[in-house]
Amino acid sequence: MLIDLRSDTVTKPTHTMREAMAKAEVGDDVYSEDPTVNRLEALAAEIFGREASIFVPTGTMGNQIAIRLHTQHGDELICESRSHILDWEMAMAAAFSGVQARTVAGDRGILTWSAIRPSIAPKIYYRAQTSLICIENSHNMAGGTVTPAGILAEICAEAKAIGLKTHLDGARVFNAAAALNTTVAELTKGFDTVNFCLSKGLGAPVGSLLVGTRADITRARSVRKALGGGMRQAGILAAAGLLALQEGPALLPNDHANARLLAEAVATSSAAQIDLASVQTNIVIFALKAENAAPAFVARLKEQGILVSAINPQTVRFVTHYDVSRAECARAAAIVKAELS
Amino acid sequence: MLIDLRSDTVTKPTHTMREAMAKAEVGDDVYSEDPTVNRLEALAAEIFGREASIFVPTGTMGNQIAIRLHTQHGDELICESRSHILDWEMAMAAAFSGVQARTVAGDRGILTWSAIRPSIAPKIYYRAQTSLICIENSHNMAGGTVTPAGILAEICAEAKAIGLKTHLDGARVFNAAAALNTTVAELTKGFDTVNFCLSKGLGAPVGSLLVGTRADITRARSVRKALGGGMRQAGILAAAGLLALQEGPALLPNDHANARLLAEAVATSSAAQIDLASVQTNIVIFALKAENAAPAFVARLKEQGILVSAINPQTVRFVTHYDVSRAECARAAAIVKAELS
Amino acid sequence: MLIDLRSDTVTKPTHTMREAMAKAEVGDDVYSEDPTVNRLEALAAEIFGREASIFVPTGTMGNQIAIRLHTQHGDELICESRSHILDWEMAMAAAFSGVQARTVAGDRGILTWSAIRPSIAPKIYYRAQTSLICIENSHNMAGGTVTPAGILAEICAEAKAIGLKTHLDGARVFNAAAALNTTVAELTKGFDTVNFCLSKGLGAPVGSLLVGTRADITRARSVRKALGGGMRQAGILAAAGLLALQEGPALLPNDHANARLLAEAVATSSAAQIDLASVQTNIVIFALKAENAAPAFVARLKEQGILVSAINPQTVRFVTHYDVSRAECARAAAIVKAELS
Amino acid sequence: MLIDLRSDTVTKPTHTMREAMAKAEVGDDVYSEDPTVNRLEALAAEIFGREASIFVPTGTMGNQIAIRLHTQHGDELICESRSHILDWEMAMAAAFSGVQARTVAGDRGILTWSAIRPSIAPKIYYRAQTSLICIENSHNMAGGTVTPAGILAEICAEAKAIGLKTHLDGARVFNAAAALNTTVAELTKGFDTVNFCLSKGLGAPVGSLLVGTRADITRARSVRKALGGGMRQAGILAAAGLLALQEGPALLPNDHANARLLAEAVATSSAAQIDLASVQTNIVIFALKAENAAPAFVARLKEQGILVSAINPQTVRFVTHYDVSRAECARAAAIVKAELS
Repeated sequence: MLIDLRSDTVTKPTHTMREAMAKAEVGDDVYSEDPTVNRLEALAAEIFGREASIFVPTGTMGNQIAIRLHTQHGDELICESRSHILDWEMAMAAAFSGVQARTVAGDRGILTWSAIRPSIAPKIYYRAQTSLICIENSHNMAGGTVTPAGILAEICAEAKAIGLKTHLDGARVFNAAAALNTTVAELTKGFDTVNFCLSKGLGAPVGSLLVGTRADITRARSVRKALGGGMRQAGILAAAGLLALQEGPALLPNDHANARLLAEAVATSSAAQIDLASVQTNIVIFALKAENAAPAFVARLKEQGILVSAINPQTVRFVTHYDVSRAECARAAAIVKAELS
Repeated sequence: MLIDLRSDTVTKPTHTMREAMAKAEVGDDVYSEDPTVNRLEALAAEIFGREASIFVPTGTMGNQIAIRLHTQHGDELICESRSHILDWEMAMAAAFSGVQARTVAGDRGILTWSAIRPSIAPKIYYRAQTSLICIENSHNMAGGTVTPAGILAEICAEAKAIGLKTHLDGARVFNAAAALNTTVAELTKGFDTVNFCLSKGLGAPVGSLLVGTRADITRARSVRKALGGGMRQAGILAAAGLLALQEGPALLPNDHANARLLAEAVATSSAAQIDLASVQTNIVIFALKAENAAPAFVARLKEQGILVSAINPQTVRFVTHYDVSRAECARAAAIVKAELS
Repeated sequence: MLIDLRSDTVTKPTHTMREAMAKAEVGDDVYSEDPTVNRLEALAAEIFGREASIFVPTGTMGNQIAIRLHTQHGDELICESRSHILDWEMAMAAAFSGVQARTVAGDRGILTWSAIRPSIAPKIYYRAQTSLICIENSHNMAGGTVTPAGILAEICAEAKAIGLKTHLDGARVFNAAAALNTTVAELTKGFDTVNFCLSKGLGAPVGSLLVGTRADITRARSVRKALGGGMRQAGILAAAGLLALQEGPALLPNDHANARLLAEAVATSSAAQIDLASVQTNIVIFALKAENAAPAFVARLKEQGILVSAINPQTVRFVTHYDVSRAECARAAAIVKAELS
Repeated sequence: MLIDLRSDTVTKPTHTMREAMAKAEVGDDVYSEDPTVNRLEALAAEIFGREASIFVPTGTMGNQIAIRLHTQHGDELICESRSHILDWEMAMAAAFSGVQARTVAGDRGILTWSAIRPSIAPKIYYRAQTSLICIENSHNMAGGTVTPAGILAEICAEAKAIGLKTHLDGARVFNAAAALNTTVAELTKGFDTVNFCLSKGLGAPVGSLLVGTRADITRARSVRKALGGGMRQAGILAAAGLLALQEGPALLPNDHANARLLAEAVATSSAAQIDLASVQTNIVIFALKAENAAPAFVARLKEQGILVSAINPQTVRFVTHYDVSRAECARAAAIVKAELS
C-alpha cells in the first residue's frame, strides 16, 4: 500500500461523505436552487463571520474570482514571491484580470506591512496603480508557514486606510488557525475576501469557497459563470463539502504532528537541510545538499512505497493529511531517515 | 408537484447515478489519476471517434477552452447571431480569448457555408483575421433546431481548406443525432473539437466533455487548469456522467415526442405564434402575440405548477427532459392550451 | 499626376502646416509641458463645448481609449454592424477591453433608439451586461451617411436614463456637421465622449482628439500611455493639427460637392448600382453588377491615374478631400463614366 | 534659463530637424507609402544588421509589440526587477498580452544566464510556461548601467537553445554601445527583436523603432495598428528621426562625460550615497541619507533653475542630454555640490 505524501489534495472521500453525496438533496445551482449548496454556502459564511460565500470547483477559481473582483485591467497586485497565485495559477492574474503581480520576498513566506509598503505604486498617472494585496496563509511553498493574526491585522488595516483591497488565499487557512490556536473568523477578519479549500486537508473530493460581503459574492457569481464554474446539481459535491467543513478542522492537529515527525527524521541527516522552525503545519519542505538530488530521491522513496514531490531540482516536499495515519508517517519517517543517512 | 420545463439542466441524478457516485473509484485528476474520470474521457473519445477528451464542469468551460485553443487574441470567430457562446457565456470569447465575434443570422439558426463565407475577413494586415467557425447543434435559442450532417460537412471541409478551425457547441448534440437518426460520431466528424453536456438531456448532475485530437486535448488541460476547472477527485461526478453517457441518449426520443405534444398544444391557439417545423428536438419556443405578455404567462403557468421560461418579453421556452414524464407533459399541454385560449 | 480617391487619409500637409510644424513651440507632453499640444487640446475642447480633450496619434486609439473608459472586461457594447470600431480596429474592443460587440444593422448605417433597445442585455447575473453604445457619424462603410441630431439626442438621452454610456466615433464628424448645417458641439452634445480625426478631411498629417469630461480625459491619459501613445514633443504634429482644426471645416462642403459629382457620374451607368440618397458627405460607395468586378475596375482606373478602393469584391469606394480639386474630380468623373459605360 | 536634467526625453528638435520636418516627403504610412518613414525603417534595419524595422510613436509601443509577438496569453516573461517594461509601461505585458512577469534582481540591473535560469518554468502542464526574456540595456532605473556583449550573447544563445525568445529594450542602446565602444549591431545581434528610441538621447521629438526579422516586423505592423500606432503622414516625424539616427550617436559620449561630472560632484558629499561605478552612461542615480529627503532636494534645485527627478522618496536621478551643455552641467554640478554640503 502506497503512502501518498505528495499533497493533501490526494485525500479520498470518506465513507460518510460518499453516503452524504448519494443522498444529497440537489437542484439547479445556476438558479440558486440547490439546497445543499445553499446550506454549505451559508455555513461557510457563518464560520468566517461574513455575509455570504460562493462554492467553486477549485481554489484557483476562488482566488482568480477574488482578483477579478478587486482589480481593473492594468492594475498591480502585491503578493509574496513564491505565492500560489503567482506560481500555480497559470498566470491568470495577467491572462484573465490583466493585472501585473509585484512580488515581495517574505522571510518564511511571511509578508509584513513594512515589507509591502515600498512596493505600492506612487499615485502618478503614468504608473500602473496598486489595487490589491494577496496573502497566503498558511504559505504552501514556504513550507506551510503561518502568518500570525497581528501581522495580518496590520496589513489589512493599513491597506484599507489607503483604499487597497486585501484577499487571503486561505487554501489551508484551517491549518493556519489550528497552528495558531485561533478561529478562522478571528484570523481572517480584516480581509475583503477569503478563499479556502474543502479538498485539501479537510478531505472533500472537490471544491472551495470564497467568502466576503454580499455585494462581492453577488458579483462573484457572474465571474464564476464566466469562468465556467456555474455547475448545475453541485449539491452532490457540496454534501461532501459540508462534512469536510464540519468535521475536518478538528483533525488537522494530527497532520501537523505527523509532519513534525517527518521533519525531525529529516533533521537528523547531514545530507539534508531543513528549517525546523518553518514546519508549522502539515507541510515539510527541505533541501538536499547534493546537486540536483531531488528527483532521484523521490524515485528511491517511490520504490519503497512512499510518494513525495520534488518542487525543484534541489527541494523535496512532504504533505501530511487524513489519508496517512500516524503509523504510516512513522514508517515513512524511518524510510526517509534511512535514505538520507 | 411542480412540472419543471425551464431547462433540461434541472434534471436530477437518478438513483443508479447516486449509487455509482457513492461507490466511484477516485484519485487526483490534476495528476490524471482518477480512474473514473479516465474511463469517462476514454468512453467519450470512443463514442465520438476521436483521440482524446477532457471532462469539464460546464459546457461554458468546454466551449471557452475550445475558443482559446483555436484562436489568438485579436482574431475573429464566426457564429450564429443567437448562439450560446454569444448570448450566454458572459462575453468570454472577448474577455478571456480576446476574440471578436462576427455574427451571421441563420434561418432557424442554421448556418451554411454560403452564409458564412462573406463574413470571413479578407487577408489584409490591418484587418482582424478570422480563425474559427463555431456551430451550435442543436441550436438552443432557435428552438432546438438541427443542422443536418451534409451542411456541417461542407462547412468543415471548406473551412479546413482555407485554414480555419471549426468547433461544435454540441451541448445537445445527442438530441441532434437522435433527431437526424445518426450517430454523434458521424454527425460531428469534420469538426476540430466538439463540446457536449452530460448535465442537460443526458441527466448527469454536473459536467461536459470536450473531444478532439490528443494534441488539442493536452493543451486543453492547461486551459482548464487556468480557468479553475482542474478538480481533484472528480470521479464522483464522472461516475454519474458515465451512466448518463451510456444510458441517456436512448431516452432522448421520448423528450422529443413530449416537446411535440406541447408544441401542438400551443399551435392550436391564436394567441401564440409557433413555427412547428422548428420543433425538432426537446425545445419549444414560441411568441405570444399580445405585447410583453411572456412574463405574465410564465407567472400564470407557475401558479398551476408548470415552470417555463420567458426568454424575452414576447417569447416563451419549454424544454422537455427525463424528469418530466409523458403524462406530466400531457397535463402541461392541457394547461397551456387552456391558458392560451 | 495621380488623383487619389482611396481615402481622405492620404491628404498631405499644406505649406502653411509645414511652416507651423517647423516653428512649433514644443515640450515633453508626457509631463503636459508641450504648449502647442496644450493649445490644440484646449481648442478642441472649446469647439466641442467640453471640459477637456486629449491628442492621440490615431482615431483607432481615440476610439479604443473611449471603449476602455466606459466599459469593464466582460461587458457588451452596441454598435452598427458595419462600424469602424468593428471592422477596422483589429478587434481591439475584445482584445484590449475584453468587450463583446453586439451589432445592429442600421438602414444606411443609421441606428435609432428603437433599433438599439432590444439588443440591450437584460439585468440577469448570468448575462454579460451592456455598458456602452457607440455611434459613427458620418458612417464610413455606409457611404458617409449622416445621422441627424434628433436621432442622436434620443439615443443619448435614453441611454443615460438607464445608465449606459455613449461614445461617438466622429472620425468625420465635421463632415456630418457640414452636411447637416450645424456645429459639432450641437450635434454631439449628448455623448459622453467624442473622437474626431485631424488627419482625414481636415488635412493634418497625423492625429485625432478625444473630447469629454475632465475626469474621463484624465483617465484617458493613463490609457493613452498604456497603448504607447504618450508621445514626447508632439507639438510638432499639434501645430499642423491646430491649422487643420481652424481652417479645415470650412472647406468640407467642396469635398461634398465633388463627391456628388462623382456619384452622379456613377448613377448614369447601368453597370453600377448606387443609392444617391446615401451620398451625403465626401464618400461615394457603389456596387458593380458584374460578379467580383471591383478589383478589375479599380485596376483599370489606376491605369488611368485614378486611385480608388474596392471595399469588397463587388463594391467600390471613392473619397474626396482637399488634395483633389474640383477639376480633378470632374476628370475622374468622366473617366469613371467611360469605364462604366 | 532652466537646466533640465529630468530626462533625455525633454530634448527639443534642432533647427536642422525642424527644417527636415518642414520639407519631408510624405505619404500614407498605413499603405506603406510614406517614403521618409520607409527610408528611416530601412536605415534602422541596416544599422542593426536586420531584415526589417518598424517606426512606432513610443518606446512603450515598441516594447509591447515585441512582447505580443513573442508570447501567448498565459505565458511568463523574465525581466529584471526594476525594468522599464515592468515599472513604466502601465502593466501592459499583463493587460494587453496577458503575460505574467517573473522578475530577477540583477546586480546594477545586470542579468546573467545563471541568474535567469532558475526562473524558467518547468515543463509541466499546470505551470504557466516561460516564452520570453527581456533585457534592458542600458538599464534606466539601475542608473544607466550597461550589460557587456558577452553576457548578452550567452543569454541569447542559451535561450535560443531551449526555444525561448529574447527581446532587448534598447531605449538607450546607443548609449550602451558608446560606453562599450562597440556598435549596436554587434551588441544586440543575438536578440530576436530590439527596440530603440529616437526621442531620448538621440534627440528626435517623437518615435522609436523595433527591429527584427521580416516575418516579425510584418506581424508587428498588425499589432501597431491594433494599438492605434498606425499613423498616416508619419514622414514628418521620421524626417527628424533620420537625422537623430544619423547624427545623434556620435554626440552621446559628451552626455556620458557630463553625467560623470555631476556624479563626482555628488560623490564629494557625505549627505548622499552614490555608486560611481554604476555611472556608465548619461544617467546619475543616488540616494540621500536623510529620510524622505528627495522631494525637498528636488524643490531646492528647482528654485535655482535645475530640474531633476525624485524617483522615490530617497532617490534622485539626473539625466544628461544634448540640450544641456558642458558649461550648464558644470554649473549644475556646483549647485548640487553646494546643496549637498
